[in-house]
Amino acid sequence: MAETKETTETTVSMDTIVSLAKRRGFVFPSSEIYGGWSAFWDYGPVGVEMKKNIKKAWWHDVVQIRHDVVGIDAATIMHPLVWKASGHLENFNDLMVDCRNCKQRFRADHLPGYEENKRAGKENPIEGLSCPNCGSKDLTPPRPFNTMFKTFVGPVENEAAVAYLRPETAQAIFVQFSNVLMTSRKKLPFGIAQIGRAYRNEITPGNFIFRSREFEQMELEYFVRPGEDDKWYDYWRNFAIDWFVSLGVSRERLRLKEHAKEDLSHYSKATTDLEYLYPFGWNELWGIANRTDYDLKAHMAVSGQQLTYYDEETKSHIVPYVIEPSLGVDRSFLVFLLDAYHEEPDNEGTRVVLRFHPRIAPVKVAVLPLSRKEPLIKIAWEIRDRLADVYVTDYDETGSIGRRYRRQDEIGTPYCVTVDFQTLEDNAVTIRDRDTMQQDRVSISELESVLKDKLGF
Amino acid sequence: MAETKETTETTVSMDTIVSLAKRRGFVFPSSEIYGGWSAFWDYGPVGVEMKKNIKKAWWHDVVQIRHDVVGIDAATIMHPLVWKASGHLENFNDLMVDCRNCKQRFRADHLPGYEENKRAGKENPIEGLSCPNCGSKDLTPPRPFNTMFKTFVGPVENEAAVAYLRPETAQAIFVQFSNVLMTSRKKLPFGIAQIGRAYRNEITPGNFIFRSREFEQMELEYFVRPGEDDKWYDYWRNFAIDWFVSLGVSRERLRLKEHAKEDLSHYSKATTDLEYLYPFGWNELWGIANRTDYDLKAHMAVSGQQLTYYDEETKSHIVPYVIEPSLGVDRSFLVFLLDAYHEEPDNEGTRVVLRFHPRIAPVKVAVLPLSRKEPLIKIAWEIRDRLADVYVTDYDETGSIGRRYRRQDEIGTPYCVTVDFQTLEDNAVTIRDRDTMQQDRVSISELESVLKDKLGF
Repeated sequence: MAETKETTETTVSMDTIVSLAKRRGFVFPSSEIYGGWSAFWDYGPVGVEMKKNIKKAWWHDVVQIRHDVVGIDAATIMHPLVWKASGHLENFNDLMVDCRNCKQRFRADHLPGYEENKRAGKENPIEGLSCPNCGSKDLTPPRPFNTMFKTFVGPVENEAAVAYLRPETAQAIFVQFSNVLMTSRKKLPFGIAQIGRAYRNEITPGNFIFRSREFEQMELEYFVRPGEDDKWYDYWRNFAIDWFVSLGVSRERLRLKEHAKEDLSHYSKATTDLEYLYPFGWNELWGIANRTDYDLKAHMAVSGQQLTYYDEETKSHIVPYVIEPSLGVDRSFLVFLLDAYHEEPDNEGTRVVLRFHPRIAPVKVAVLPLSRKEPLIKIAWEIRDRLADVYVTDYDETGSIGRRYRRQDEIGTPYCVTVDFQTLEDNAVTIRDRDTMQQDRVSISELESVLKDKLGF
Repeated sequence: MAETKETTETTVSMDTIVSLAKRRGFVFPSSEIYGGWSAFWDYGPVGVEMKKNIKKAWWHDVVQIRHDVVGIDAATIMHPLVWKASGHLENFNDLMVDCRNCKQRFRADHLPGYEENKRAGKENPIEGLSCPNCGSKDLTPPRPFNTMFKTFVGPVENEAAVAYLRPETAQAIFVQFSNVLMTSRKKLPFGIAQIGRAYRNEITPGNFIFRSREFEQMELEYFVRPGEDDKWYDYWRNFAIDWFVSLGVSRERLRLKEHAKEDLSHYSKATTDLEYLYPFGWNELWGIANRTDYDLKAHMAVSGQQLTYYDEETKSHIVPYVIEPSLGVDRSFLVFLLDAYHEEPDNEGTRVVLRFHPRIAPVKVAVLPLSRKEPLIKIAWEIRDRLADVYVTDYDETGSIGRRYRRQDEIGTPYCVTVDFQTLEDNAVTIRDRDTMQQDRVSISELESVLKDKLGF
């Protein structure tokens, strides 16, 4: 694929992306026919393929090609003691403020002026603030609200049956540490990775799929010898930024931001956010935390089980430190969408093109017969069926060829294969490049190998 | 891969499979360090790869290569009205019986003698039955118990905030019917597929991953013209059996069983189970149901929205019928495990070998240096890293070569690549076939292409 992505200062609006996402089948509002359903989203036919590509790329690069990382796939509803041990029952709270006038509820740190009050050291951080809904100043003091979703497991609905939807995938990795260590026989340093759903009952979700109540995480817990944690913390910070750049995201819209000591979570010695420049400003994309031995020790204390590593060098049991790179699938999806979005003037007005990296592009190739005449369609279908065994392949015979190219540009398809009347003579087709719009004539028999070279896989 | 699987009457016990699954990293009990957590399971390093392979094979065969099927990936927590419209709030019940003596609760149809009483037409179907736990005959009459998991969405925990974890993936497909139709521009007949978690608060789960409270489904809703539904119902019944056979499952352990009219669900015109002969007997694996236009009409009635298809042939809006092939990922996993399990006498006692189809096998190839001497290890790592870019590839240098082959046999790795001292002379390695145990000498430079031919991808 030709390197054609230029640096640009123009930023697409969230409205444009949300609208494109719905119109082209990337992301739909969940339960839309029931008037919508706050902060839940469904991925459509194009979106599901792109989401799979993101997960596949991460798993390939973080698990499959590495000899030091293995994966797991755990249940999303775990034993409730897991969340006692991890500290989530006590600490996984947002501060919540009620408006006594209109009865709306808000996350305190999302109230305009709250952060300023806090930074100014005011004793009452909601002093002088107003309800964003009705403007009333009659607000309750901030109270903690646990954002874990609660459910009941088993046939009796009482306190003993309460369980929680996991707010992060990480804890399953700590809880299964010994089982994984025993079956994988890995030596330190090594990692355990997981991709899966997590749930947070956000008080004020928003910004499309940036902050929703149900989302997917790609988390790695990378276990290291105490003392080697700073080195590996640096390693995974750099990995994070390199990974997005390798998948075509603009380097200048990425930055690493270290958390101030006083803002660190209860388990963390150091945390960095890889941030992206969204239309709503710089915000988090990938968190890299040095969780020390906090989690393993916490689960040992509550479960009474040993979660240690036998170190053959020192002939002793040690509790490893852990570096956690934690990335959201949905946030990654949003970043790939935003960063790929380009508008270009052309002779028909504006060409909207999503310049996805070939690994991320939901559809890799589209087969377009120039006319609906029988011999062309037959050849086009044969090509489509051959390619579809290997790549997600579209077929489109409706509308002008220019319009069909535009449709594929809008979902970021890297290559279009056009079957025309000359094909009947030369057994060749045209491959059209999304970014350069150049067209190459290629023999049908060489199509797979040419596409493989162009796509890189 | 050589065709070596013979028909066999011996059946592995569930205990053997559960034990192997834990010992080799296929499946662990969830939250085991907290004393276990009923009916939830975690997939380990080997299991997660195999589970991914099952989903990938299904998606490839049901979505990717077909021109008439697209996918979605919806939220697991949907608007509560979805479950009112679908009938789940009213009908998704199991009958539950309490023992007044020991306070245990049971699913009525799992009580020994219950089905016999029902078949005998007894008015009180628990007449004469005893508690399976304490033996008391003091049982309550059966009462309906809704098996949807309940939660609360938003900051207030009251009746208005109640929502449910989806008990099936299908409903999201019906709810998004119009969005998918509009963006994919498909013509009838066409299907919408989804893979994802579903949750059922089973009163008496059991048989390992056969019936758990959290599981994954692979569901297709295939929309057809009314009148063509019987034809497509037959098509997908045959597809189901052919799919498992194409992935190596024994034909003689599969059968189609049509539900009696009086046992059909409230939405179904006809239902067939593809059954497998588990160690605990014939039981369901894949359900194929003719759901008619029940679901689309039900959602139209409750939402007031149109979920119709504009038929250009008749110039009218029609409500399609739908054929639903619905398959559990975890049940498929269990079937592949059970069916692949073989014990063979050998000179060291018994060889346990899992004869997975190459597409299902969690690890495709293992690289084994014959000795830990530097030149062999260096070559072995180079080969491992090259192969790992394409296939899930193990590397193992510990223990005798025979023992290492046995380890790979136990997780069903189709091929082992052995690097030996002769490799230093001839730049070739040995490829050992899991099933025939035959060894071929292959040049290192041809390794990828030979493996590709052997594996078939």
